[in-house]
Amino acid sequence: MRAMVFDGALRLAADYPRPSPGHNEASIRVGLAGICNTDLEIVKGYMGFKGVLGHEFVGVVEECRDPDLVGQRVVGEINVGCGACPYCSRGLSRHCPDRSVLGILGRDGALAEYVTLPIENLHPVPKSLPDEEAVFAEPLAAALEIREQVNISPSDSVLVLGDGKLGLLVAQVLAPLSRKLRVVGKHRSSLAILSQRGIETCLAGDSPPERADIVVDCTGSPSGLEAAMRLTKPKGTIVLKSTVATGASLNLAPLVVDEITVVGSRCGPFRPALDALDKKTVGVRPLIAGIYPISDGLRAFEHAAQHGTLKVLISFHANLTQ
Amino acid sequence: MRAMVFDGALRLAADYPRPSPGHNEASIRVGLAGICNTDLEIVKGYMGFKGVLGHEFVGVVEECRDPDLVGQRVVGEINVGCGACPYCSRGLSRHCPDRSVLGILGRDGALAEYVTLPIENLHPVPKSLPDEEAVFAEPLAAALEIREQVNISPSDSVLVLGDGKLGLLVAQVLAPLSRKLRVVGKHRSSLAILSQRGIETCLAGDSPPERADIVVDCTGSPSGLEAAMRLTKPKGTIVLKSTVATGASLNLAPLVVDEITVVGSRCGPFRPALDALDKKTVGVRPLIAGIYPISDGLRAFEHAAQHGTLKVLISFHANLTQ
Repeated sequence: MRAMVFDGALRLAADYPRPSPGHNEASIRVGLAGICNTDLEIVKGYMGFKGVLGHEFVGVVEECRDPDLVGQRVVGEINVGCGACPYCSRGLSRHCPDRSVLGILGRDGALAEYVTLPIENLHPVPKSLPDEEAVFAEPLAAALEIREQVNISPSDSVLVLGDGKLGLLVAQVLAPLSRKLRVVGKHRSSLAILSQRGIETCLAGDSPPERADIVVDCTGSPSGLEAAMRLTKPKGTIVLKSTVATGASLNLAPLVVDEITVVGSRCGPFRPALDALDKKTVGVRPLIAGIYPISDGLRAFEHAAQHGTLKVLISFHANLTQ
Repeated sequence: MRAMVFDGALRLAADYPRPSPGHNEASIRVGLAGICNTDLEIVKGYMGFKGVLGHEFVGVVEECRDPDLVGQRVVGEINVGCGACPYCSRGLSRHCPDRSVLGILGRDGALAEYVTLPIENLHPVPKSLPDEEAVFAEPLAAALEIREQVNISPSDSVLVLGDGKLGLLVAQVLAPLSRKLRVVGKHRSSLAILSQRGIETCLAGDSPPERADIVVDCTGSPSGLEAAMRLTKPKGTIVLKSTVATGASLNLAPLVVDEITVVGSRCGPFRPALDALDKKTVGVRPLIAGIYPISDGLRAFEHAAQHGTLKVLISFHANLTQ
């Protein structure tokens, strides 16, 4: 099968072995898959991962022991736990120490014609939700995770740093919770997507925003935390969303002096994400920067890696490309 | 008056001007003052502070408008807020954006024969508590601050990293809260102080401890957070106590991947600290590495700066030195 593979270099494999599903797994024919910043970081060496990339997808179950699932359109959670450890028992398989993670850690990913995942990881996609929106379930779930971790009250001021893919989702997810949410970004066109939805934005470098109670770092940059520390009120909270391959020289004294709390935040709940997509409470269409056929997979990655590019999707059906 | 002054270089001033108390301030004749790691960092350039060093002291009020206070032995909180801003109104003057901080920011410190502080910053010292113990009120309050910020239940495993002055106080303060507390240090003699109090310890470099629910970084090292990230369970909490002059190259991806919370922690409540000292629930005598007369102030700093040295005190009465 065709697949986007990283094995020290990024390549489009023409004949990668098609994976066979285990007993509790499903084999899914991928319809559409997204390129995430994590994929771009893996290509720079993050996680030391080798194999098929990709962890954002929507597809159709082709083979599994549950006949009701066959033919069903699904998205899938990306962490696969051992099922037996204390984390898995508490429903926190995404923190299982022996987990594999789709396209990130010990498990081939979804930027391929077929992917396998445990049945319990799959979520049926509502019929009314098209592939190009359903494929955002995974990053939107990651944005929603913040609401599970941090209590935001309407009077809390919130700053979202970064107007990349994740920043635009996080801003939309948090905007209804706070009367004082602002997004700081570098790209007028990306910020305009939020302005059109009534969300306040400002261009980085313009008059610096006031310090906020809650600052979410979606910059994807090693220096994001430093900016966040400058912009967080004493006793405030920073939510850290960026994972990057390289470190930065950081002096963390401001965290101590200002008694700031930093909350690391990763994957989140899929059902509320599918629900928000289906109800259109979060708009994702304007985030699509391009849809490439898998045959143009390398070009898709080049596009995604360009500064300021939003979501690049790879399609496994000719009629979906644009 | 004699004072330990940093103005680009550390020196013992013989004739530093004696400060005059403002209307709401008291002038305090210092009996005993401690050297803190923050002082050693300031000498390396931290905070860009110039003036009299020192923020840990016990002394006797010699002049102030409240006659009941004159002659009273006191310790003092180190942050002086504007009194009018939202932080000050909430009792959080230690986070007032216009604050001064004793011997750290915009206010001469306590390593001098006289120091001034607002009356409201002062806490009378119980008669039964000797100077050599009362002088620990400020660092002990900083240790107690952790209990205000993080909820620790008996089943939570706790690791304290560092067996310096602060680590030994933090360990004693947190030990009663958890059935599984362990201290990782580098100095057998310091760890022995804790073992004698029934606290479990281990030497850094021996078999690495299991990951814990709560890890407190008291290493005073720029690399402390990196060690803490390795030793914290997913969804766990790191308490950051170290302020250092220099940064470190850090990759914070583990915070995001493991969804760890980092809590910056600085100054704390004085009354419970004085209470714990008076009731001897925290032992501080074994932490005293030396008491120097102010005439030997430079030698005191040299001693304090030596690796593995615990608390060095400077006395302004000849009979207290050892």
